[in-house]
Amino acid sequence: MNDLRTKIMEIAKRRGIFWKAYEIYGGLAGFYDYGPVGSALKNNILNLWREIFVISDSLIEIDSPNLGPEIMYIASGHADKFTDYMVKCQKCGHAFRADELLKDHIPDAEGLDADRLWKELQAHQIKCPDCGGDLTYPERFHLMFPTTVGLGKKAFLRPETAQGIFVNFPILYRLNREKLPLGVAQVGKGFRNEISPRQGLLRLREFNMAEIELFIDPEENFELDSFGEVKIPIKTRDGSESVLTAEEIAKRGIARPEIAYYMAKTLKFLKTLGIPENKIRFRQHHHNELAHYSQDTWDCEINLSLGWTEVIGISYRGDYDLKRHMDFSARDMTAIRRFKEPKKIKVKKVRPRMEILGPMFKSKAKKVAELLEKKEPSPAGIEVELDRKRMLITPEAYDIVDEEITVGGERFIPHVIEPSFGIDRILYAVLEFAYYERPETGYKVLRFPPKIAPIKAAVFPLMTKDGLDGIARDIKVKICGNGIPCYYDDSGSIGRRYARADEIGVPFCITVDYQTREDNTVTLRERDSAQQKRIPISALTSVLKSLVEGTKSFDDL
Amino acid sequence: MNDLRTKIMEIAKRRGIFWKAYEIYGGLAGFYDYGPVGSALKNNILNLWREIFVISDSLIEIDSPNLGPEIMYIASGHADKFTDYMVKCQKCGHAFRADELLKDHIPDAEGLDADRLWKELQAHQIKCPDCGGDLTYPERFHLMFPTTVGLGKKAFLRPETAQGIFVNFPILYRLNREKLPLGVAQVGKGFRNEISPRQGLLRLREFNMAEIELFIDPEENFELDSFGEVKIPIKTRDGSESVLTAEEIAKRGIARPEIAYYMAKTLKFLKTLGIPENKIRFRQHHHNELAHYSQDTWDCEINLSLGWTEVIGISYRGDYDLKRHMDFSARDMTAIRRFKEPKKIKVKKVRPRMEILGPMFKSKAKKVAELLEKKEPSPAGIEVELDRKRMLITPEAYDIVDEEITVGGERFIPHVIEPSFGIDRILYAVLEFAYYERPETGYKVLRFPPKIAPIKAAVFPLMTKDGLDGIARDIKVKICGNGIPCYYDDSGSIGRRYARADEIGVPFCITVDYQTREDNTVTLRERDSAQQKRIPISALTSVLKSLVEGTKSFDDL
Repeated sequence: MNDLRTKIMEIAKRRGIFWKAYEIYGGLAGFYDYGPVGSALKNNILNLWREIFVISDSLIEIDSPNLGPEIMYIASGHADKFTDYMVKCQKCGHAFRADELLKDHIPDAEGLDADRLWKELQAHQIKCPDCGGDLTYPERFHLMFPTTVGLGKKAFLRPETAQGIFVNFPILYRLNREKLPLGVAQVGKGFRNEISPRQGLLRLREFNMAEIELFIDPEENFELDSFGEVKIPIKTRDGSESVLTAEEIAKRGIARPEIAYYMAKTLKFLKTLGIPENKIRFRQHHHNELAHYSQDTWDCEINLSLGWTEVIGISYRGDYDLKRHMDFSARDMTAIRRFKEPKKIKVKKVRPRMEILGPMFKSKAKKVAELLEKKEPSPAGIEVELDRKRMLITPEAYDIVDEEITVGGERFIPHVIEPSFGIDRILYAVLEFAYYERPETGYKVLRFPPKIAPIKAAVFPLMTKDGLDGIARDIKVKICGNGIPCYYDDSGSIGRRYARADEIGVPFCITVDYQTREDNTVTLRERDSAQQKRIPISALTSVLKSLVEGTKSFDDL
Repeated sequence: MNDLRTKIMEIAKRRGIFWKAYEIYGGLAGFYDYGPVGSALKNNILNLWREIFVISDSLIEIDSPNLGPEIMYIASGHADKFTDYMVKCQKCGHAFRADELLKDHIPDAEGLDADRLWKELQAHQIKCPDCGGDLTYPERFHLMFPTTVGLGKKAFLRPETAQGIFVNFPILYRLNREKLPLGVAQVGKGFRNEISPRQGLLRLREFNMAEIELFIDPEENFELDSFGEVKIPIKTRDGSESVLTAEEIAKRGIARPEIAYYMAKTLKFLKTLGIPENKIRFRQHHHNELAHYSQDTWDCEINLSLGWTEVIGISYRGDYDLKRHMDFSARDMTAIRRFKEPKKIKVKKVRPRMEILGPMFKSKAKKVAELLEKKEPSPAGIEVELDRKRMLITPEAYDIVDEEITVGGERFIPHVIEPSFGIDRILYAVLEFAYYERPETGYKVLRFPPKIAPIKAAVFPLMTKDGLDGIARDIKVKICGNGIPCYYDDSGSIGRRYARADEIGVPFCITVDYQTREDNTVTLRERDSAQQKRIPISALTSVLKSLVEGTKSFDDL
């Protein structure tokens, strides 16, 4: 573990951000708890995500279960293909992901098959990282957690929230009044039985995700609006890196316009979270790296202390998912493409010849003719059912003619663009870039942007006497009452209280001193600059609100 | 299914509130999806819950995983005791909860053992409800969903969020600066493999819960504050019903004061959600009905269309959980009880007799004496370890004396009060009491209190011409921009648009008409009264805010 990660783990546990779950029982690898500060931070990140991706684009959000039936995951391809190659140590028995062991030696280990992995492991003389023992031949290891529902119905914990959206497409399409594009969001847990999770929040077996499935008509144009101008750093499949606007990416056919749009929005999202723009890039997947459902995927990567790390994936899933669910469920998963003008199209029709049918069927000839007209034309005779008896009508009893009909639209299977956000990884990235040590004192500060800071303000009385503490408590109650998370602290020196607030990223500290009793003002101290200004108590909540929302800066005060 | 339930299921599916999950694959019993309206309603219920229970009491909220290790559930008792008795039909094979089959015949079937259940099933000649076949002898059926983490570590999906809090007690206690009471909240999923879930949102296998674990010193007084005055309808274990204040309940020893406090808060919560007070009661569990961890439990029940239904449980878990986890993990789960005045207490101490030890150990005698002083006194000799050798010091080498020492506090295992909220059941109850049909038209209305309504406002142009639609769209954008969920609708007559809004409980509809172009006012229509008032556009968002927050009523306008 590198230095920065160690420091973040230390502060995270000490100050209630996150820690290894089940520590009193020796832990459970790949599972973490969020403490009070961490869960508030996570909620704030999710709220910002909703603001940027869901509300401003009028998407709809749903909430489907974590457990799903086996048949759905057979249809989705996960039951068969959602695996990693595992090698085990022949000495200590520890298991590892084969491609992870190779990642420092060859660039694209993720897509390799068992033979190729085995060859590379041998070529690079890879041994067990824990004990140096010899490794076994790579075998496929299934990444979904299985369980049983009821008395024996096999089910899985979802590896992505996406399938819960796909299987509801008919309902959601109806709720959207049968219009495309239809964007559906879901926030929730995902589960993957990772072979050997050892990277804290970066590789969890139970993780928080936020996903969008954007159902589109692939023949419709997609408008980038103002996001077309956003400059995006990309690294294409061929290894070349460049910075292009979203519009250029779409126009040159480097990626679909919907993908370019989500790249631009993602950039905005991450910058608002405090991730520096020059630490972000979008990397296109190699062909052998693509998930089984994907035609094209771009990873948004952040350059963390351990190198470029995937935090978000934007995939073009084509019609794979809806088509598979249509095949497996025999339900209609299509949408309608309405023509601007009704179209006249030519179709083949059956026209019965009454002069043949009349003598043949007597009083029933008319009925037979009606039945024939509804059938698919065939020059080899047509089967009809009359009075519960099936019979073949030979070709001389009808003609096949061309007929022109008018249609208003056609049905098709929508395609899907999926931006999928790993919230825990994003939260960890926020911590890495927020972490700072004051040069003078070495004190630790988490410089969260005020908008996502878990606690926005702290109120301190200079002394716990002469009524200062009472005034401070009243201020705290008033601020909290306005929906601004805030706490009161009167323990230790003011300096210690500032330091404690800095460690959990409180952006604004308010101190009640003796001047407060005279003129009803308090000092407001800004975390990053450590500057202080005097503010009237009456203006405090509105000042805090505009500072948190970013409509005012501290210098404006 | 009764009439009201059928109607709610119909509107819920049609308007995107909730529906059976995985319907395209024939469903999965006990699993539901929340659509856009339902998930917003759920979030609003949870936000109100946080406001009333978490924020106003300064509790801390954490977020622990759904999957937990087997050892934790062995410690908690769930691995062994979290079961229901199941009977199977010998003809069709369907499975049922034995006590559920008896609930119309005997009052307290839940606590009965297998023999007693079998006797009652026979006495009441209970047959398979599906086919009339004979039932098997009751057998225990385990209710947790098992799975495997990594290569073979057994784990379970949590049946309650509580254990994720208990195992973190040492960390949380430290974060609370070692003070009690310490209230910890958690909102999340729970999972129970119910034998035969057939009651929609009322019996789910995957459900939403909101729990509080209040860690207390059982010897400390607990203040009811203003909640002491709240009148609470209770039904005690002996079957008698009465209405008492929270204070009376605590003073008379009917329930612990903490339980009375949460009864009062729960009543406030449910009333704010629109549940009529006379449909709520608190029922005490019979002894044989108590969960294995509970010393006393009160169910908050709501009188729904299918009768009194448990939606919340308030349990006194004593020190059961922390004690068990302390035993199984060998970690310290105690808190400190600080004495107001330091206490002098008498303890037995070892006083070495140097006149014996000196000749015996020569230069090492002093070292041995020091070791002895730290040991527990025993008249049968004391073992010490010197230079890695163990030896028994016989009793003549020391005296056991009484000594008086001063201590500032003592350690003890905190007790736990747990209010546990079934959010899906509460949401369903909200729907039952919100459901209303307009007598004139039979149109359906969901009369959600504005504060929890998923969508607060809808904006309609009278006509989609003469600029009315543009004005309406601008108003919609402005309202949404102020964080008030709102939509625009120009399809069909105004009457139809009102009816559509009523069905998803939109409390306020705004219509832009020709007068708007003249005087910049719009009509504001209140859902329940169907009354309309003209409001200036400039005042709209502030008017909506105060109506939603309840600081103003429609009549005040």
